[in-house]
Amino acid sequence: MTIQRRHDPERRLFASDNYAGAHPEVLEAIAAANGGHQTSYGDDAYTQALGDLFAPHFGEGVAAYPVFNGTGANVVALSAAADRWGAVVCSDVAHIHTDEAGAPEKVAGLKLYPVAAPDGKLTPELVARAAWGFDDEHRAKPQVLSITQSTELGTVYTPAEVSALAEHAHGLGMAVHMDGARVANAAASLGVPVREFTTDAGVDLLSFGGTKNGMLYGECVLALNPDLDRGLLRIRKHSMQLTSKMRFVSAQIEALLTDDLWLRSAAHANAMAARLAEKAAAVPGISLEHPVQANGVFARLPVEVANAAREAGYLFYDWTPDGQVVRWMCSFDTTEDDVDGFVEALADASKRLSP
Amino acid sequence: MTIQRRHDPERRLFASDNYAGAHPEVLEAIAAANGGHQTSYGDDAYTQALGDLFAPHFGEGVAAYPVFNGTGANVVALSAAADRWGAVVCSDVAHIHTDEAGAPEKVAGLKLYPVAAPDGKLTPELVARAAWGFDDEHRAKPQVLSITQSTELGTVYTPAEVSALAEHAHGLGMAVHMDGARVANAAASLGVPVREFTTDAGVDLLSFGGTKNGMLYGECVLALNPDLDRGLLRIRKHSMQLTSKMRFVSAQIEALLTDDLWLRSAAHANAMAARLAEKAAAVPGISLEHPVQANGVFARLPVEVANAAREAGYLFYDWTPDGQVVRWMCSFDTTEDDVDGFVEALADASKRLSP
Amino acid sequence: MTIQRRHDPERRLFASDNYAGAHPEVLEAIAAANGGHQTSYGDDAYTQALGDLFAPHFGEGVAAYPVFNGTGANVVALSAAADRWGAVVCSDVAHIHTDEAGAPEKVAGLKLYPVAAPDGKLTPELVARAAWGFDDEHRAKPQVLSITQSTELGTVYTPAEVSALAEHAHGLGMAVHMDGARVANAAASLGVPVREFTTDAGVDLLSFGGTKNGMLYGECVLALNPDLDRGLLRIRKHSMQLTSKMRFVSAQIEALLTDDLWLRSAAHANAMAARLAEKAAAVPGISLEHPVQANGVFARLPVEVANAAREAGYLFYDWTPDGQVVRWMCSFDTTEDDVDGFVEALADASKRLSP
Amino acid sequence: MTIQRRHDPERRLFASDNYAGAHPEVLEAIAAANGGHQTSYGDDAYTQALGDLFAPHFGEGVAAYPVFNGTGANVVALSAAADRWGAVVCSDVAHIHTDEAGAPEKVAGLKLYPVAAPDGKLTPELVARAAWGFDDEHRAKPQVLSITQSTELGTVYTPAEVSALAEHAHGLGMAVHMDGARVANAAASLGVPVREFTTDAGVDLLSFGGTKNGMLYGECVLALNPDLDRGLLRIRKHSMQLTSKMRFVSAQIEALLTDDLWLRSAAHANAMAARLAEKAAAVPGISLEHPVQANGVFARLPVEVANAAREAGYLFYDWTPDGQVVRWMCSFDTTEDDVDGFVEALADASKRLSP
Repeated sequence: MTIQRRHDPERRLFASDNYAGAHPEVLEAIAAANGGHQTSYGDDAYTQALGDLFAPHFGEGVAAYPVFNGTGANVVALSAAADRWGAVVCSDVAHIHTDEAGAPEKVAGLKLYPVAAPDGKLTPELVARAAWGFDDEHRAKPQVLSITQSTELGTVYTPAEVSALAEHAHGLGMAVHMDGARVANAAASLGVPVREFTTDAGVDLLSFGGTKNGMLYGECVLALNPDLDRGLLRIRKHSMQLTSKMRFVSAQIEALLTDDLWLRSAAHANAMAARLAEKAAAVPGISLEHPVQANGVFARLPVEVANAAREAGYLFYDWTPDGQVVRWMCSFDTTEDDVDGFVEALADASKRLSP
Repeated sequence: MTIQRRHDPERRLFASDNYAGAHPEVLEAIAAANGGHQTSYGDDAYTQALGDLFAPHFGEGVAAYPVFNGTGANVVALSAAADRWGAVVCSDVAHIHTDEAGAPEKVAGLKLYPVAAPDGKLTPELVARAAWGFDDEHRAKPQVLSITQSTELGTVYTPAEVSALAEHAHGLGMAVHMDGARVANAAASLGVPVREFTTDAGVDLLSFGGTKNGMLYGECVLALNPDLDRGLLRIRKHSMQLTSKMRFVSAQIEALLTDDLWLRSAAHANAMAARLAEKAAAVPGISLEHPVQANGVFARLPVEVANAAREAGYLFYDWTPDGQVVRWMCSFDTTEDDVDGFVEALADASKRLSP
Repeated sequence: MTIQRRHDPERRLFASDNYAGAHPEVLEAIAAANGGHQTSYGDDAYTQALGDLFAPHFGEGVAAYPVFNGTGANVVALSAAADRWGAVVCSDVAHIHTDEAGAPEKVAGLKLYPVAAPDGKLTPELVARAAWGFDDEHRAKPQVLSITQSTELGTVYTPAEVSALAEHAHGLGMAVHMDGARVANAAASLGVPVREFTTDAGVDLLSFGGTKNGMLYGECVLALNPDLDRGLLRIRKHSMQLTSKMRFVSAQIEALLTDDLWLRSAAHANAMAARLAEKAAAVPGISLEHPVQANGVFARLPVEVANAAREAGYLFYDWTPDGQVVRWMCSFDTTEDDVDGFVEALADASKRLSP
Repeated sequence: MTIQRRHDPERRLFASDNYAGAHPEVLEAIAAANGGHQTSYGDDAYTQALGDLFAPHFGEGVAAYPVFNGTGANVVALSAAADRWGAVVCSDVAHIHTDEAGAPEKVAGLKLYPVAAPDGKLTPELVARAAWGFDDEHRAKPQVLSITQSTELGTVYTPAEVSALAEHAHGLGMAVHMDGARVANAAASLGVPVREFTTDAGVDLLSFGGTKNGMLYGECVLALNPDLDRGLLRIRKHSMQLTSKMRFVSAQIEALLTDDLWLRSAAHANAMAARLAEKAAAVPGISLEHPVQANGVFARLPVEVANAAREAGYLFYDWTPDGQVVRWMCSFDTTEDDVDGFVEALADASKRLSP
């Protein structure tokens, strides 16, 4: 056999938490789930176990629907929560609005009402700017509020903030969806049981993230509110998010939930981001754009400094078109040395290039 | 760490080739591709290599778009081949018509024209029953012919048959898509280079199957005709078929193509199906419903016999609502002993239950 | 003012009932509804009256939703009856399958299961061929049965036939939609109150036809079963079927219902079709393809004869690609002289061209 | 015959230009087009004439596609201009974003990027806020700029402003669509040939409005740029915007274009709005919110005054949720007496209710 490695397994970057690979415990779980035959499409021992595995975290009765990816999780959940005539209120930096290439609109016919939200966080007042006109047949009906936790800007809603949003939305007859691609980072950041800012705070449907937290692939739609557990099996299928060998997604999820790997990994990534933020902010000419509450750092810095760091081998994305704000993400495998080396490169560039 | 195995890795069934797990060489490739950071969404070393890896099989210039699953591969390919006003001609047992829950219609607005096809194989004459009215604005325009190779009924098109279909379709201005969820089984069955019945026969777009042939997950849309390589990046994304950690799908595909694993596995599965067909057909009361040319066996047998075999532990699906025709699938890991044990169970039941 | 007439108002053809213009009583109603201001989008005096106007025909509580055209009526009704994951069982000559260019699929994501139906009429046995697999997530769920009355082939379901279909469908948990683009022709043909084969027979949603029966434009979705009156206002709007100056559609409908114009016109068209059928069938070489029970005649005749009649100025459509079966439609303004002249042309051609 | 009038033909309001009925010349044209048979779906003498009728206004080669309503015109045009993966940049008060209930998203899968625009008018700088990221597969590709003329806020783009927008959009590879539901009001307001701010300014596709300007129903998609005249026949059909008796829409359009009825009516409505604006602004406590350049007046006034005017019989809509800004629309049949009576009612209320 001639399997070849085509990349350098020691090189790590700050571009995205999905530049990382799979956590070793995840691979181990896949190997354990391999061999023999298991019923496909979810009627396997690993998928059947998910309800019991999630219950301690999200409450009894949570229903779990593994899917392939985050966009899929979001669109499946939102499709279940909205009628054909429904619309979704979200922040204007929501992944569903900015990074899913129109999948909500194109695949599910969902209308989005994006609202500008400082630090990526909505409030009842901000939601109210879009959540109105429920009886106006000319306006796609706002039926779902979708929030992201941790947000696309690296901030975190407190349990009280989520509760206030959910109360507001429910009062308007709207369901609450949480895009939890990085829900583990939020849980680790807040240091509270995840249900405090999900089930108990009134979130109805959660996209539980896996890929950005050490899985090869796979996320999970969780119906936290049984009333919203309607049509999910069907919608997942025609949304092309039903994996045949589902045991392997479920086994990865089990690995995350085993010995709190999901929180261990997230806490580590958060710590690396905090370290990076603190050290980078001490570099002249670099400032933080948003509070650093999860695993992402948004920094403002001279374009020349950013480019010099890139030339030194550190890839990351511009966040604003002018390149003056950039995003640095940490993942489960980011090391203190990675951070320190990166900051050193930034500091060198700053010293060299700043007036 | 407390990763647990929840299933019996020695039990194998005849229900579906996706009841099987992953081939060990595939897992090995995933492990080799792990570690370190790689650019996500396709700009990684493994995905970049796919063109060169596929070229010897499908011709220079083939473009490869890894996706999550077979329905996704089909809908992405068909979306690229059809305008907003287009329709697809397919057989009435085509997976896109019978097993994708309306994904082509719901996700991509594709109208299907299913045509009854003996043994699951279309002919130019059969295609002509649906491929007409190209200038009639009241009729969704037939723009794509979709055929399945090997078919959903375990049969295989010869290269000449595919060529005749493609010539007919092209003559009508239609593109040709091949659902190749089991294209490896067809190649192994025909014993010819795969390009003889794909690229060289006029197939424009191919859904190259991986999951049913020993991958954990993942298929690949191949644009064999560069003229049809239009919009695929975009369509894959909004169709929610873009995997972030794409290196792992690509590495699995590379494993399949390495040392011809894809053909080795398929040839083995085909051989097991042939063995099963031959032996089962010798059992009184059991007859074959279609030629056995790939890894599936469709048998007619008394319902009581089928149920007795199930009680003996052999799961498989009814193919007709009355249960008189059933489907048995073999996979890369089916053994001769599995087959012989199964036939023995059938023979026992037949002896016991037949008059 | 220089309004000009661009056509010959005395020339009538047999191509389609929508080649005819508007009935004079319909134009009179539009003139009466004109002038002054009325609230748009349905909150006008004419639309508000529709419920009371329809009630004597369809029962108390019928809700009426005027729309623009027949495809719109069908798709709006079917969208209300089917979940996102739903499918529709229909005949293989159903307008929704053959003449709406994929609107059900493209606009509403509806999957169709067409079933071959002799004379265009489904039966419970035929429906059963497609209405199965309700618990199979891989199959778009059959949720609606759509039948056409009178059918696309000029035949008519009896009340008992509709009841049997509805009972079968309801027993499977499916709703029943009737495409009534020519429901008036069916009512006139059967000589029974329309509710006997609609509301009382178990039809849940009706597309009540207007355009083919002397309106300028406009049809009406009727929710005969209040349980299916869900979301219709919303769906009509986003389906682009909400007319702003709705008073004019409603006034036309009122004209149809006034002094039974709808039945008078339909009975006349039916009588002309019967006259045409009887006389044409007496011409050597011409035979009837289906029973003539409404306003359409489907005849088999030599292609040369058909073309000779066309050269004599009588336009009509081929029904089969080979041109051996043609369709002749009569409308509210077809005269006995029109029919007799046409038959004469056919007879002349037959005499001249037949061996 | 017992056709009844159900409304007061002498009562006129200021709520919407579609509260008005049909212009008498329009009704006359319908009557002239009636009688006899004409080929349906556009192959009639009236529709065939449209190209020649529009050419003097929009240039030789303009292709005309009559449709039912404004939402239909917009969605059909945008669908032709955008690929499956495309998005549309528009103002945040664009009708397509605020008043079409998500039809662009739900019917055509179009993603909208709304941009806040003072007085409802976009500029190249504002467009640039959304028109970026063309090579980013994660972002629905901005492919169309849609502007409204006259705007939803009663303002008008100058020819130079449209040219600048079109130049900017074309420079980015985007097409330009104009929602011309009130294009006649813009033409009358600017006093220039309509082609100066459409064809000659670089507009590719125009939704030519009819209903708001004295038609019963009907609008027309105009392909001003032949390169964008692609698929419109097909898209119109599956978008359910193809009227069978098209001669009646076309005859109405011809009536509008005859003796410049479209401009006469629009100029009159504009004049009435100007009169209303001038007189109302002289009432203490009432101010204008936007320049009054077409047939709409947006006024800020005490809620008590607005309500008192309503109690006096003058219906109109709140424009802001708090009711402090209202919209008054004038139409072809608004009279000077109507305006003066309305202003009198406002003045009375103001005197009575203001401190």
